[in-house]
Amino acid sequence: MNTPHIIDGKSVAATVLDECRAEAAALTAKGITPGLAVVLVGEDPASQVYVGSKARTCAELGFHSVKIELPASTTQEELLEVVRSLNADRAIHGILVQSPPPKHIDEEAVIRAIDPRKDVDGFHPENVAKLVLEDPTGFVPCTPAGCMRLLESAGIQTNGAEVVVIGRSMIVGKPMALLLVSKKSNATVTIAHSRSKDLPGICRRADILVAAVGRPEMVKADWVKPGAVVIDVGINRVEDPSKKSGCRLTGDVAYQEVASLCSAITPVPGGVGPMTIAMLMKNTLQAARQLG
Amino acid sequence: MNTPHIIDGKSVAATVLDECRAEAAALTAKGITPGLAVVLVGEDPASQVYVGSKARTCAELGFHSVKIELPASTTQEELLEVVRSLNADRAIHGILVQSPPPKHIDEEAVIRAIDPRKDVDGFHPENVAKLVLEDPTGFVPCTPAGCMRLLESAGIQTNGAEVVVIGRSMIVGKPMALLLVSKKSNATVTIAHSRSKDLPGICRRADILVAAVGRPEMVKADWVKPGAVVIDVGINRVEDPSKKSGCRLTGDVAYQEVASLCSAITPVPGGVGPMTIAMLMKNTLQAARQLG
Repeated sequence: MNTPHIIDGKSVAATVLDECRAEAAALTAKGITPGLAVVLVGEDPASQVYVGSKARTCAELGFHSVKIELPASTTQEELLEVVRSLNADRAIHGILVQSPPPKHIDEEAVIRAIDPRKDVDGFHPENVAKLVLEDPTGFVPCTPAGCMRLLESAGIQTNGAEVVVIGRSMIVGKPMALLLVSKKSNATVTIAHSRSKDLPGICRRADILVAAVGRPEMVKADWVKPGAVVIDVGINRVEDPSKKSGCRLTGDVAYQEVASLCSAITPVPGGVGPMTIAMLMKNTLQAARQLG
Repeated sequence: MNTPHIIDGKSVAATVLDECRAEAAALTAKGITPGLAVVLVGEDPASQVYVGSKARTCAELGFHSVKIELPASTTQEELLEVVRSLNADRAIHGILVQSPPPKHIDEEAVIRAIDPRKDVDGFHPENVAKLVLEDPTGFVPCTPAGCMRLLESAGIQTNGAEVVVIGRSMIVGKPMALLLVSKKSNATVTIAHSRSKDLPGICRRADILVAAVGRPEMVKADWVKPGAVVIDVGINRVEDPSKKSGCRLTGDVAYQEVASLCSAITPVPGGVGPMTIAMLMKNTLQAARQLG
């Protein structure tokens, strides 16, 4: 039985946050306090938790932070007006509108309204293009950026590696594939998805397997080449009567049966999850540095 | 010995051009004559040939066309001023600055200066992002758009197919991979490149192999799975003493040894090559339609 390296996302995230704290102090000493604005429309409980945790992390790192909570009845134009005033606010370097907004909001239009230099989520077309063009002044979406940092921290070589990314979303799958195939990473990258034929066989080729598909424990033992590195981006809530809450979190990977096959693997929770917010802080610092 | 279907790019391009001619006439009847401006800086002979052929095709289709030839000494600011005046010109729907410009020109900045609604090359960040976001109002770069049309015309299914794209350029490899992995095409796509390990083995998995790497006859018989479809994007000039000109054109695929293995293959010349200009005309029509 192989003992895999469990990639500890909490610990790597803590290191990233320490770096951020130090850099925030250095910037503040120069008169630039990094500032993040988080906008929440409506009362979605999960979103409220995320937004609260972002604000708390800002406070811990010495960032300036603004939390704007708007009622679910906020109109598109009112939301755009909030974004525009944040674009103009010199104390704010990063702007994030918590997803998903209420159904009557055109999220695409809201993202486009954010000044791309403050788009720390990396979803603005300007930053999407910079990712494709390998322009380091762009903002990389936080979750794939976090996965890259986990690979790096675990000393995993991407150069020449065969990587399979399951999932083709704009938030994880596509940016992850683009990062891995870039001249900096040099991986051979396959983008697979729910419509792929023989998904297990495709995944079995991978030296590095990234699961970002949102289906609980889809990746089984026979999907994984012995010795592979597995990065599990999924965060799925499944029923579990044995838990007091009646449910538990699980990834896209059947961890129990897969882990012993791997050379390294990220757990859920405690793997990719904690990295997302850490990379958001990194992006906010990058924005503060670039905007000056 | 298998007889492959030779995908006739000249014939498919002629069909595309016929469609363009008909649509140009219909638009012109509505008072909108599609207009393309091609800007050439310097006296590169190959570029002069390309620009001449674009202007000639416009004339044949009933497009309005403007050819702007500037001396190699043109400054960045002078070139940007030309682009700005074309952006403002209501008779012009498509603007193309022939690549490569002289070394003192910042090509990236010139592309950014083009109104993205007139960027018929599809290189502006706005159109790069639209490709990633699968927004059909964007312009798809002409060569990968031409490859997609060749696949379609030959009745080749991409849905669920394993595709390998060799090459990760912004002009062909990356956009081709993004088109193939989109929800419209649903292929499983591997992006391989010069740094990939075991490139022949990776290519041998492909149901559809797209070679866009710019190395003459790199893809040999043992790189190709019997029955595969091969799309050869390479146009390489190699020495050939048996020719009067002393050279001949060849693709990235060793056609002589590969063709008999394939179910379908594009020749060089006469495969992908003629499609590029045809798709440029398609893009110019799309611009004319969208700008009105």
